Amino acid sequence: MSAPAGVSGGLTRFRIDLSYDGTDFAGWAKQPNLRTVQGELLRALTEILGKSSEDFYMRVGGRTDAGVHADHQVCHIDLSDAQLKRIGRNPLSPSRINSLLPTDISVLAVQLAKPGFDARFSAIGRSYVYAIADSECAPNPKWVRYTLTHPRLLSVEKMNSAAKKLIGLKDFGAFCKPREGATTIRELKKLTVKREKDGRILVFVSADAFCHNMVRALVGALMAAGEGKLSPTELAKLQQAAKRTSAFKVVGPQGLSLSEIRYPAASQLAKQAEKARNIRSSEEISV
Amino acid sequence: MSAPAGVSGGLTRFRIDLSYDGTDFAGWAKQPNLRTVQGELLRALTEILGKSSEDFYMRVGGRTDAGVHADHQVCHIDLSDAQLKRIGRNPLSPSRINSLLPTDISVLAVQLAKPGFDARFSAIGRSYVYAIADSECAPNPKWVRYTLTHPRLLSVEKMNSAAKKLIGLKDFGAFCKPREGATTIRELKKLTVKREKDGRILVFVSADAFCHNMVRALVGALMAAGEGKLSPTELAKLQQAAKRTSAFKVVGPQGLSLSEIRYPAASQLAKQAEKARNIRSSEEISV
Repeated sequence: MSAPAGVSGGLTRFRIDLSYDGTDFAGWAKQPNLRTVQGELLRALTEILGKSSEDFYMRVGGRTDAGVHADHQVCHIDLSDAQLKRIGRNPLSPSRINSLLPTDISVLAVQLAKPGFDARFSAIGRSYVYAIADSECAPNPKWVRYTLTHPRLLSVEKMNSAAKKLIGLKDFGAFCKPREGATTIRELKKLTVKREKDGRILVFVSADAFCHNMVRALVGALMAAGEGKLSPTELAKLQQAAKRTSAFKVVGPQGLSLSEIRYPAASQLAKQAEKARNIRSSEEISV
Repeated sequence: MSAPAGVSGGLTRFRIDLSYDGTDFAGWAKQPNLRTVQGELLRALTEILGKSSEDFYMRVGGRTDAGVHADHQVCHIDLSDAQLKRIGRNPLSPSRINSLLPTDISVLAVQLAKPGFDARFSAIGRSYVYAIADSECAPNPKWVRYTLTHPRLLSVEKMNSAAKKLIGLKDFGAFCKPREGATTIRELKKLTVKREKDGRILVFVSADAFCHNMVRALVGALMAAGEGKLSPTELAKLQQAAKRTSAFKVVGPQGLSLSEIRYPAASQLAKQAEKARNIRSSEEISV
């Protein structure tokens, strides 16, 4: 295997796919004295591979905030030859890592990364789903941990009408926590709303990348539209003003799940990674 | 409304449909100093209706053990005229009761019971689903609370072959905790095994009623069959012997969910209740 882009010689990159229930985590990113997904994963990997002062050079495709779930998250690690030897005869399989993880994290797949693959910089898109139980829908205890309960009725039709105004390459400053020097321009590829058979409303969101709290602000805006408090035209104007507003709320994390990180074909992985590094520090902020 | 069967005059019977995540409950039945589903429900009803020394004469269709879930449970309560008055102008709606319940219980419907309805004695069948994640299936944190994790591969084909031997009106003494003077004869109407798209194995079980731990013993027997440790013929012999055996285990409660309580047509409710009362104390024991 040729050395992966962005990794110094002698390191071998592995791609790790995983899912987690974010309820009891203070988000993805490792933090001292807090229970985080990355912290738990690093602890399990350290048990197999020994201590790594550089955290195995782990990078993640979609960093998630406290309480946000992931049906499908992707990260990578870079291992030295000495660490590779410690894997021993048993492969670095999902079941081996899962046996060392709590039940609210599950590794789905571990594989040698393709040349040029970078979990964060090779990604070309992220998709999220947000689940809401409005007054039409009796809350089900089996999914209530993954769903926002809303005490009033929401019109899916009105939510979809509003959503159409936001699709495209736009400045999402009205939906982002401002960060100095960072662009708030993103390409929103998908924003659709559907009522499931079980009564829940699901909001599907895809973009090249998201700025901090953007998905939860978009959902808050659609909910205001769904209650008739905000017309599609008013929402379009707020987007164009590109300034934070009190016309809608940033909704809670419990309804939000990362559902997919998209990567290009193998031949484009390195090229995409280089492009993303140069354009902006893609998805370095929590969603 | 005419007085419901089995209720003295002046009481009005309500049917309550509900679901719960059994993980953090010590089962359905009220117990001092323990968190139970009935205990929480009685507490919420007491807040609306005032104290009831008789626990509103509550009876349940399928009493569940500690850790067992219910996608659909049915119980009834009988209210005096004084209690009815306390309901006030707002109906005794699911949302009103749910606002007083923890999120791991959800009331789905509240309705005036049809004449002759008894949540326990009118029931003609109970259905359960048991979920297993074997080694074929990566555990998903979103359903791991509702699923038994099994470290080895199970053959769905072998499980179904074994299941066929157990269908019918039989003595299930090999699958029941013995209780003095109680029959272990039940009519097992359905026992089928299916692998879902998400990789999990689901066992569907229906009977007129179940004895204590019967579903979990049936699933344990099918799992032994699925691993090739028990042939269908051997299982049939164990059933015929009708004695407790160490050839299979009673599996844990986390994979088990009550999915349905079946009642006959309105005209048969009272007749069925009378029949069940006379034959045996139907479903008074925990599953």
